[in-house]
Amino acid sequence: MSTVDIPTFDDVVAAYGRLLGRVLRTPVLNFARFDSRVGRRVLLKCENLQHGGAFKLRGATNKLLQLESASRIVATHSSGNHGAALARAARERGWRCIVVAPRDASAVKLQAILAESAELVACDPGLVAREATLVEVISRTGAAVVHPFDDAQVIAGQGTAALELLSEHPDIQVLATPVGGGGLLSGTAIAGKAMIPSCRVIGVEPEMADDAARSFHGGLRVGVQGSPATIADGLRGSIGARPYLIFRSLVDDVLTVSESAIVNAMRIALEDLRLLIEPSSAVPLAALIEGRIGRSGETIGVIISGGNVDLSACPFLAGRAPLSA
Amino acid sequence: MSTVDIPTFDDVVAAYGRLLGRVLRTPVLNFARFDSRVGRRVLLKCENLQHGGAFKLRGATNKLLQLESASRIVATHSSGNHGAALARAARERGWRCIVVAPRDASAVKLQAILAESAELVACDPGLVAREATLVEVISRTGAAVVHPFDDAQVIAGQGTAALELLSEHPDIQVLATPVGGGGLLSGTAIAGKAMIPSCRVIGVEPEMADDAARSFHGGLRVGVQGSPATIADGLRGSIGARPYLIFRSLVDDVLTVSESAIVNAMRIALEDLRLLIEPSSAVPLAALIEGRIGRSGETIGVIISGGNVDLSACPFLAGRAPLSA
Repeated sequence: MSTVDIPTFDDVVAAYGRLLGRVLRTPVLNFARFDSRVGRRVLLKCENLQHGGAFKLRGATNKLLQLESASRIVATHSSGNHGAALARAARERGWRCIVVAPRDASAVKLQAILAESAELVACDPGLVAREATLVEVISRTGAAVVHPFDDAQVIAGQGTAALELLSEHPDIQVLATPVGGGGLLSGTAIAGKAMIPSCRVIGVEPEMADDAARSFHGGLRVGVQGSPATIADGLRGSIGARPYLIFRSLVDDVLTVSESAIVNAMRIALEDLRLLIEPSSAVPLAALIEGRIGRSGETIGVIISGGNVDLSACPFLAGRAPLSA
Repeated sequence: MSTVDIPTFDDVVAAYGRLLGRVLRTPVLNFARFDSRVGRRVLLKCENLQHGGAFKLRGATNKLLQLESASRIVATHSSGNHGAALARAARERGWRCIVVAPRDASAVKLQAILAESAELVACDPGLVAREATLVEVISRTGAAVVHPFDDAQVIAGQGTAALELLSEHPDIQVLATPVGGGGLLSGTAIAGKAMIPSCRVIGVEPEMADDAARSFHGGLRVGVQGSPATIADGLRGSIGARPYLIFRSLVDDVLTVSESAIVNAMRIALEDLRLLIEPSSAVPLAALIEGRIGRSGETIGVIISGGNVDLSACPFLAGRAPLSA
């Protein structure tokens, strides 16, 4: 009989202690204009303002601090934010870091990985190519792998964002996050249900990469085919085994939204919230704007997962060359 | 002999107490990417995240709470943020509010004034037309006037942003703000010099509306001609009498930046800070990016004054119609 390690709330609390001083306690913001637009009180946990511009530093740091490796090398595959986060965590510990990234990853995210002094190995898009390339890297270097989401300590680390949010706002009735591999949603569900048992936890993903919704509603874990062309580049992967198991017991619903709703939500975020958020972060906001998360008048907590937008590729930004040097 | 009331630090402290619970204590953010770009540690006091998206609520609320008026009507002229702030403050006190606004004001700011249930009276651009229209409104309605910047209690209120910033970060060596009428800069200077006497206080304004710089360096208060066409719509007015008197004793320098530097700084703010800031707020960042504020390695505090950007008029955003409903 094989076993799978599933994190508990104790692991999230331990991660919280471990991360103190290593990750930002990001601000929780609220905007009257957005509240009146959606008819709910919306509290935004702004992980777009985290070091590296994404929540991923939480999981990567929590994992790396507990890792023992003779090689002092870590490796992962990532479309961006996890790679940059692991690179930062490795640099702080004085380890080498190798990131396998698909060629269709966002340029701004690839830049961020390089800026954190990691080595970048390109591969074809899609999970199969990513994993094959990672295996090759590991066999060549002896690196320890830090999976972007299917890892108990990574999930526990991601749950610390919800822990911070709920400890400041115990009146939250619904928590919503985007779903890609499921690390953020499952960590959020563990923290949310432990701290406020009546709190509903909702995941939202793009229609074009609806594997988590199909898995959740179908009762069988299924993956996406290849690399879906959704604009939400952080959510193109398939849901992991551990996140799926956690979803089944702790998540209340998984919704999907269209591409145009995602772009519209990004633009509304810029107008109403004055925040530049990446398409993945706009996914739960899109469902909120459609009135599909919580009920009128309720207090909704949303994890804004990241802010790493490639301005030149943003649909409502001019496609001209950057004005900056 | 006539006298002019000039606020002191005691007035800023009193305003701080008066505003507790009425304005947001906005977050102070720091971004490694921007720090390394400018070679300084930059702490951003994010008044773009204030209620109404601008610092103006501080001064308007502080003034309104001390106003007695039989008519229970207030009026002002404003290109946007002050009008919306006064409207909000009036609404909270149950007063009527009339805002005189130039026809060239930003659409998003005019919308915000209307959203706060104020009455809007249009006038031609330029200070002369604004003041004439306001006089007409006062004589017709008996409204009490709340000047956008040339008022001791408004200035004291604006100083509370710096008070909050410096109380959290007493290691700040330089404080920078944009300068339009001078309310924010003079309030900031009063708080800054009282709390940290060695702190240098710098104002920055557009070259196209350089009246504060010419006044500061020339030793005589001069105004702008008409309504300069700078993109920094919040800084088109001339410096007020009280701000000018405060500048002379408490401000260390007033710099100017070009229009292209302002646009470039807005774009960098979106890239490095993931914040949408209005052109006026980009003005001090432009000087920072040019290496003209503080010295390498110093800690610089910047008041990000507002985030009310008309997306359709933003030079690096596509000019298409909003996707949102």
